[in-house]
Amino acid sequence: MLKENEVNINTLLNQLDDITSVDLALQLSDLEDNEIQEICSKLSDKELANILEESEEKTQIRILDLLRNAKILNVFSYMSKDDIVDILGEIEIGKSKELINLMKDGKDKKIIEELLGYKDDSAGGIMTTEYIALKKDLSISQAIQKIKEIVSSSEVIETIFIKDNKKIIGITNLRDILIAPENSTLESITNKNFISVEPETDQEEVALLASKYDLNVIPVVNQNHVLLGIITIDDIIDVIQEEQTEDVLKMAGVDKEETIDSTVFQSIKMRLPWLIVNLATAFLASLTVKAFENIIAQVVALSAIMSIVTGMGGNAGTQTVSIIIRNIAMGKVELKDSLKLVIKEILLGIINGAFIGLLTGIIVALIYGNAYLGIIIFLAMIGNLVISGIFGILVPLILAKLKLDPALASSIFLTTATDVLGFFLFLSLAQVFLPKLI
Amino acid sequence: MLKENEVNINTLLNQLDDITSVDLALQLSDLEDNEIQEICSKLSDKELANILEESEEKTQIRILDLLRNAKILNVFSYMSKDDIVDILGEIEIGKSKELINLMKDGKDKKIIEELLGYKDDSAGGIMTTEYIALKKDLSISQAIQKIKEIVSSSEVIETIFIKDNKKIIGITNLRDILIAPENSTLESITNKNFISVEPETDQEEVALLASKYDLNVIPVVNQNHVLLGIITIDDIIDVIQEEQTEDVLKMAGVDKEETIDSTVFQSIKMRLPWLIVNLATAFLASLTVKAFENIIAQVVALSAIMSIVTGMGGNAGTQTVSIIIRNIAMGKVELKDSLKLVIKEILLGIINGAFIGLLTGIIVALIYGNAYLGIIIFLAMIGNLVISGIFGILVPLILAKLKLDPALASSIFLTTATDVLGFFLFLSLAQVFLPKLI
Repeated sequence: MLKENEVNINTLLNQLDDITSVDLALQLSDLEDNEIQEICSKLSDKELANILEESEEKTQIRILDLLRNAKILNVFSYMSKDDIVDILGEIEIGKSKELINLMKDGKDKKIIEELLGYKDDSAGGIMTTEYIALKKDLSISQAIQKIKEIVSSSEVIETIFIKDNKKIIGITNLRDILIAPENSTLESITNKNFISVEPETDQEEVALLASKYDLNVIPVVNQNHVLLGIITIDDIIDVIQEEQTEDVLKMAGVDKEETIDSTVFQSIKMRLPWLIVNLATAFLASLTVKAFENIIAQVVALSAIMSIVTGMGGNAGTQTVSIIIRNIAMGKVELKDSLKLVIKEILLGIINGAFIGLLTGIIVALIYGNAYLGIIIFLAMIGNLVISGIFGILVPLILAKLKLDPALASSIFLTTATDVLGFFLFLSLAQVFLPKLI
Repeated sequence: MLKENEVNINTLLNQLDDITSVDLALQLSDLEDNEIQEICSKLSDKELANILEESEEKTQIRILDLLRNAKILNVFSYMSKDDIVDILGEIEIGKSKELINLMKDGKDKKIIEELLGYKDDSAGGIMTTEYIALKKDLSISQAIQKIKEIVSSSEVIETIFIKDNKKIIGITNLRDILIAPENSTLESITNKNFISVEPETDQEEVALLASKYDLNVIPVVNQNHVLLGIITIDDIIDVIQEEQTEDVLKMAGVDKEETIDSTVFQSIKMRLPWLIVNLATAFLASLTVKAFENIIAQVVALSAIMSIVTGMGGNAGTQTVSIIIRNIAMGKVELKDSLKLVIKEILLGIINGAFIGLLTGIIVALIYGNAYLGIIIFLAMIGNLVISGIFGILVPLILAKLKLDPALASSIFLTTATDVLGFFLFLSLAQVFLPKLI
């Protein structure tokens, strides 16, 4: 293992001129601390800044642990404020405060302290302050001159914000500036209809706006329309992927913080609570069966067949729930649309249920030599698929309406419904037809 | 209902100056055909082009059906080629060919025919040709002049492609052009390390590259490094959301084409096949139980308890599978990493299984007044959770290694394993302890 690392670090040292920051950052995560230190000593402060920006959280913390505070502050001077704020939020709070205290008093330090005040997953928490905002009265040639001066310290130059005193009144873009007559004012090419968010806006909503309106950058303003910062498209994409991961994991009852690098102990803490909740609903279904124990005692075949009904109800319900949850996430459906969706699911439940039920009923009747077993499973299948369709539509929409996350709780409500009601339906039908089954 | 639409269209007609294309496009989809025609008649060709770009597929087809071919071609002249190609790919093929034949022979027509030749979900299928590519020998001032000339017909101006004859040799950006000395050449500020894709590259891979390297635009080149087109970030975001929807729906056995607007008939065709496949695995589990029917006949309590074991196995397995599938989608894990992940899941299965099993065992023993029932469910729970952990890691990774989509098939293999093996484990233990249970 040691030999393999030795080869890696020598290869890396040779590749330093050609490798991208992204790839180097990925490789660093596999090295030992002394090797990371060796690589870092060969990088300029600017290169180190790029590495830090691209590294995963664990690696960022390890790198910062290896550098002196003065060096860290030099590296920070090459980073955009939102990345600095992210890192400060991850490292141990004592060290974070040390670094902030060491910063020269002034505009930068003030901005960082402000940005740190916002919640991580809000617009304020992901915005940065490297934008270009110009006064509306500037002429085009003055504007171009100003842009040339500040271009190297801004993240985004193709969208220019136009201000009147401190307020943002509109936006324009570099394209329009380049083709406008040199003597006209910025105001004449300003688009006053633009989309902005407030710093408390949730990052998921910001991402929805960006994707809906094809925006490359979203300004963050306070209630007086003073520009506080901007959110750039690369951060939007990170948010979209983060939110998507969160939804997928939530539907499975997994904490969004769990990664493949989580330790056994961390995974237990993150998975066990959901398993216990599921245990409670499993017991509910179990007690439903227990209520019919005397029936099963007389027709043991029921015990083998009943799980087919509940299983199919769960599968059909999962189909419905997944479509609805995905459409809720994309902002395409609300509770008020539910009536026609429920009607459609009932029809689907009847038709799919009849088809599946017929297939199942015939096979069961043949295996067990009793047509009535086939009939009750046919009826129960239709019933359970209708139930799963109704719950599959209503549960996520009601949860979303109550401002609860549909991805998290829908599956548990759904499986409880299809299991409990599925067993109940099937075994009740068995009770009704009991004389014919014995 | 009619009155509501009348109010809507009048409101819309009044709002035409203030509403964005995105919002207008959304509202159009709720109107009747004659109302859409009325709105469209009030829009300029350029505005109509924006509406078409932002509309959903169904609405696009409806709008085109209402316009004469000559009008459509005028509208197309304001649209970027990738959007034209998308629309042509959606409408009925006869009409598509009509429109292409009516186009004036020339560069535009040739480009559109080329783009139509690429698969929908490949780099070639989502690229557009409105980029800026300049010769490396141009001076900075010549470059700025050239950019001003062509700026209105390009989608992306902040990234400029530098060519030598027809080959792309590097990229630069507007920022660097603006601050470079007027007499230096473009070549002197060209970055020759850049990421590109070939037209056959799958769109999912393009999106992964864009998000990994924070790219705003990705050039598409052929094997001779001639620039064929570019993919812009707004299209990347659409791809990311499309792929994510696909994965979520696949995991539930739903066709990616299904939307909330699908008809009952379409939904049946898209959901029934998967339900039939699940039925087969449900029968497998059912036959496993049937093999132990004589045991259940003697201890009916088993019928109520056994579904707790398989249910928890399914839940725990879903947790594992979701994490792995998400990490496969983000390119963070491969089959070769599986050994330590499997070991971790075995440990998790033992610990979580012991915890859940203890809880379940105690409750079951109390309800049924038999400690051995509690013991067998304790052991079966540990066993099934270990099984679900192992399958949860290996199945998706093996499927991915075989170039099959893990999102699609993992859940079915997993539930088959946890149900069949769960029942087998539990009922075998019951057989072993049978004397103590009766």
